[in-house]
Amino acid sequence: MTIVEKILASHSNKSEVKPGEIVNARVDLVLGNDVTTPVAIKEFRKIGLSKVFDNERVAIVPDHFTPNKDIKSAQNALFIRNFAKEMNILNYFEIGKMGIEHCLIPEKGLALPGEIVVGADSHTCTYGALNCLGTGVGSTDMAAAMATGYLWFRVPESIKIVYKGKLKPWVSGKDLILYTIGDIGVDGALYKSIEFTGETIEDLSMDSRMTMANMAIEAGAKCGLFEYDEKTKEYLKERAVREYTPVSSDPDASYEEVIEYDVSSIEPQVAFPHLPENTKPVNEAKGIKIDQSVIGSCTNGRIEDLRIAAHVLKGHKINPDVRCIIFPGTQDIYMQALKEGLIEIFIDAGAAVSTPTCGPCLGGHMGVLAKGERAISTTNRNFVGRMGHPESEVYLSNPAVAAASAISGYITHPEEVIR
Amino acid sequence: MTIVEKILASHSNKSEVKPGEIVNARVDLVLGNDVTTPVAIKEFRKIGLSKVFDNERVAIVPDHFTPNKDIKSAQNALFIRNFAKEMNILNYFEIGKMGIEHCLIPEKGLALPGEIVVGADSHTCTYGALNCLGTGVGSTDMAAAMATGYLWFRVPESIKIVYKGKLKPWVSGKDLILYTIGDIGVDGALYKSIEFTGETIEDLSMDSRMTMANMAIEAGAKCGLFEYDEKTKEYLKERAVREYTPVSSDPDASYEEVIEYDVSSIEPQVAFPHLPENTKPVNEAKGIKIDQSVIGSCTNGRIEDLRIAAHVLKGHKINPDVRCIIFPGTQDIYMQALKEGLIEIFIDAGAAVSTPTCGPCLGGHMGVLAKGERAISTTNRNFVGRMGHPESEVYLSNPAVAAASAISGYITHPEEVIR
Repeated sequence: MTIVEKILASHSNKSEVKPGEIVNARVDLVLGNDVTTPVAIKEFRKIGLSKVFDNERVAIVPDHFTPNKDIKSAQNALFIRNFAKEMNILNYFEIGKMGIEHCLIPEKGLALPGEIVVGADSHTCTYGALNCLGTGVGSTDMAAAMATGYLWFRVPESIKIVYKGKLKPWVSGKDLILYTIGDIGVDGALYKSIEFTGETIEDLSMDSRMTMANMAIEAGAKCGLFEYDEKTKEYLKERAVREYTPVSSDPDASYEEVIEYDVSSIEPQVAFPHLPENTKPVNEAKGIKIDQSVIGSCTNGRIEDLRIAAHVLKGHKINPDVRCIIFPGTQDIYMQALKEGLIEIFIDAGAAVSTPTCGPCLGGHMGVLAKGERAISTTNRNFVGRMGHPESEVYLSNPAVAAASAISGYITHPEEVIR
Repeated sequence: MTIVEKILASHSNKSEVKPGEIVNARVDLVLGNDVTTPVAIKEFRKIGLSKVFDNERVAIVPDHFTPNKDIKSAQNALFIRNFAKEMNILNYFEIGKMGIEHCLIPEKGLALPGEIVVGADSHTCTYGALNCLGTGVGSTDMAAAMATGYLWFRVPESIKIVYKGKLKPWVSGKDLILYTIGDIGVDGALYKSIEFTGETIEDLSMDSRMTMANMAIEAGAKCGLFEYDEKTKEYLKERAVREYTPVSSDPDASYEEVIEYDVSSIEPQVAFPHLPENTKPVNEAKGIKIDQSVIGSCTNGRIEDLRIAAHVLKGHKINPDVRCIIFPGTQDIYMQALKEGLIEIFIDAGAAVSTPTCGPCLGGHMGVLAKGERAISTTNRNFVGRMGHPESEVYLSNPAVAAASAISGYITHPEEVIR
């Protein structure tokens, strides 16, 4: 069996499952944010239960419109806060003690190898980096899972992607996933499970793996999974809140498709508006003027990302025509960046450093674009109007490209800034 | 003559002016923010001029709904950015390179002793701390001043307030001004010029003086002025962008009223909802439960304020039921706080640290209150709905009280946290 098949089998007490089969699987964690949880709560109330299935296995992270951007978001935040209290939900994370959900949940050791985590947020697939079946669900599914601890799944077909070769300088997990989506398309893995494998992946940091898993949904995938290895073990050593059992694909596992990439010639990628599949090497985007550079998010708001951005920005000034907004993924990442001197570099360069929030990524707040404005962004989506006005544009890139572009004022290969 | 009379006389080429007289005065700086400037620009366009009266003497600071909270604020920000470019306005301050206008303008040495600064923002009176006639005007007045460099004024009556005695521990400029407004009322100085004087004031830091001048408008005053002294001189030494001529009141200056306070028994003050005049000693507010603590703003977002807040918060954790939001007044203050280790203390305590913005103070974004929620805040206004829902409540205090309250979860005298 493939990884996803093994996880779904073990969670539905079956010795074997096959793609297309419907299973009722136990979930290890149910996650919601301030946008999706209010709806889930209303559905949960209809069931009439007085408690969630397990108060240690529900996590609620207000991160989209928080710190509250308006009265409506304040009411939503209050609504979920009260619910979390009533249900004694232990993993409720308030602003100032939290972060962007998909940076926070791994950091808190709440998504573990061999587990199933369902989150009412499409980027829950991030946890695939930890050999965990993380997947996004709707608010009503979140409600059902909060009530029962179970959810039905159609066992997805699996695609194996094998990455071979050594990465060029300035190329990261973000570029690999952008390149992959550019190749297979935004529906290239529709409802399928991607397994990211190969020697390149083995060399990749946990942060870069999370960036890749995070964007599996941008190829339509149900999840994007990595094998468990020493790096996973190391990452979870001080973090895991539960015992866990890693899952490996069998040597005779059956894949619908196996795709191989030689990564050695891949350049830093830029996804042009208005789909993540519109990827081109950064040099083909050269000279495109930008108004805003956004560095952060559940895709690229981790310490490795901030280190790269700081490395590029150090000693430079943000272009006068560019607003550069940097938002660390969690308070812990913020603190780490602060201790390493990265925040000082950002402020010195003239960047606005925000408390962790999803804010600008979804055009929510803290950096919404006006008509005709153009952003380079380390986030995950560049759909029409994603960051603001329907006539604004978003170009997706890795943090080094976003930082270099913030300095020059147009989309720039970082090697032009640091030689 | 009083200070305000001397300044208005010198700026209207008169040897003498009297209260009630209308003068047409030259202004030294015209200021606008992202809320008021768009309206001013539209009015300015009607005049048909192709340039402002002096491109070095107009300052535009987008700080209220920036980083852009939504498409509307993004359009406004774009509108003023384009205007600033077209007019070659040198003191246009973009996010990441800026701060809250009334923290930024003094820091940049743009408001100077003996000058007149009109700003399309009510708290322009802050610059009174620098012996400068700073006063808030409407957007149409801003337009007229941008066009001509002149504006008409009715010479205000002057009130002299004399503060005597030594301040108790934990008592700051914020408490003096809250106490004063509590005594004279929110219309106690309607269209009058307050002169803050006395031995207590002489001992007061520039930051505390700015806090006091900032809230002169909360007593209805046209301006709140301080004498120029060694502290003013020191503050401006590396900052002033122009030569300046300090102004002192004459020994025989005529005041409508002289008020004396012995400050030695004044406790830290808390202004209860829904007016800044509803002040009581903090111990009379003890036990009032809070949901949010806001530390920052043009009133209390300066380095001294952050130092006090950090002193109280150090080694403590924000109460789990409280969101504590701290926003340095400018990028320079942020950097200073970072270098002094204050930001680390805030993050460690579990506070959300924001890039400089007016945000929560006016219920704009970054910390809006829900129905029934209660905040303690170092800001300047606690009107109905000021920070969000009409049924939310704001209690005003100094930063030490706000920090202590964030720890305990209810309004608290800082001496209860630090003995």
